[in-house]
Amino acid sequence: MAMRYELYYWPDIQGRGEFVRLALAEAGADYVDIGRRRGSGAIVAALERRREKHPSFAPPFIKAGRLTVGQTANILLYLGVRHGLAPKDEAGRLWVHQLQLTLADFIAETHDTHHPIALALYYEDQRRESKRAAAEFWKRRPHKYLGYFERLLEQGPYLLGRRLSYADLSLFQVIAGLRYAFPKRMKRIERKVPRVVALAERVAKRPRIAAYLASEQRIPFNELGIFRHYKELDE
Amino acid sequence: MAMRYELYYWPDIQGRGEFVRLALAEAGADYVDIGRRRGSGAIVAALERRREKHPSFAPPFIKAGRLTVGQTANILLYLGVRHGLAPKDEAGRLWVHQLQLTLADFIAETHDTHHPIALALYYEDQRRESKRAAAEFWKRRPHKYLGYFERLLEQGPYLLGRRLSYADLSLFQVIAGLRYAFPKRMKRIERKVPRVVALAERVAKRPRIAAYLASEQRIPFNELGIFRHYKELDE
Repeated sequence: MAMRYELYYWPDIQGRGEFVRLALAEAGADYVDIGRRRGSGAIVAALERRREKHPSFAPPFIKAGRLTVGQTANILLYLGVRHGLAPKDEAGRLWVHQLQLTLADFIAETHDTHHPIALALYYEDQRRESKRAAAEFWKRRPHKYLGYFERLLEQGPYLLGRRLSYADLSLFQVIAGLRYAFPKRMKRIERKVPRVVALAERVAKRPRIAAYLASEQRIPFNELGIFRHYKELDE
Repeated sequence: MAMRYELYYWPDIQGRGEFVRLALAEAGADYVDIGRRRGSGAIVAALERRREKHPSFAPPFIKAGRLTVGQTANILLYLGVRHGLAPKDEAGRLWVHQLQLTLADFIAETHDTHHPIALALYYEDQRRESKRAAAEFWKRRPHKYLGYFERLLEQGPYLLGRRLSYADLSLFQVIAGLRYAFPKRMKRIERKVPRVVALAERVAKRPRIAAYLASEQRIPFNELGIFRHYKELDE
């Protein structure tokens, strides 16, 4: 029942699409990264396609045969059970989805440290506010979120215990992103969440993830995505 | 198979819990609003409960027998199929969930107009930034989001066409909240999205929703929740 997926996402950033790319990589799924193959014009055209029965508000979205699924966490909900990245029973599925939505909240808050005023403005136009937002953010939010995941990891090497799920892949990506964006601040906090750090390393070493990360498919972090390195926000 | 749910959410605000309360009301479900019955101390205690197998990062969460489900959209995913507020087929379930997650993004952006710098700070401590954030927000975000839903409503009276779903209840709540927080700005935009406005009215008139809205269970909007009225942010 091998299905060839199409992923629709911007070609120049990891962004929210990366959480989907990591799940597809770990699953060994066959997919075409439409944005990278045909450019961002193809993404815009797909978004504006009038005949689309289930149009997305924004990328990422995937096509799986006749099905179109949008919203990062929703895509992972769909892919998870199909590719062994989520439990099959309802309670387990809801739990991993809950973790993913909590990560999504953390990711949005992290993004907003460099865009506190508006998405549509450049960072340079909200730099003073960003400094204040980043300082406030680092007073408590990463401790609170990472502390929450640290506590869950008392049960085993992965968030669900012994079994890898898509939420682990996303937590890896969050750690990688925070390290890129805030290297100094992360160094200080990592000591306090050793299990989270170990999980991130465990995920990075999984053969398919390691191969993906070493490939050209992995777009480098940059100052257009969710996790951006601005020295002045890292103290 | 009638189940008595327990809803865990803060007792003094509509907040994110309200999206769940509306779904429970429309479903005619039997539930105990734990926060309102026992106070916010009971919510904090439940959050900190060490033996909890699936602890939530934050409220709302619900208990359904031995199952605990957190994250607003995830709770609705769980309740939806059980109470006829979502289609039973996978494609339909994913689509209504996608709409809910898009509404969640809109809600978070709306909230951030009065808290652009930090959740932990008072509005008064981020007032200048809020003015800028609210002005930028109103330049395009409500038009873009509501325009998206307006387009979907070309297919029928509800977002899925002829059938009510939990996403319709949430869109009603968003409109009610925006009207409360930004009465002037909303007046101007409502003309452009007549189908969305009609949907909100349709939902408000559903017998169980109308009864709920008229009851004491409906907490009035206030300046502690997601939708807050600050005159200076409404121009």
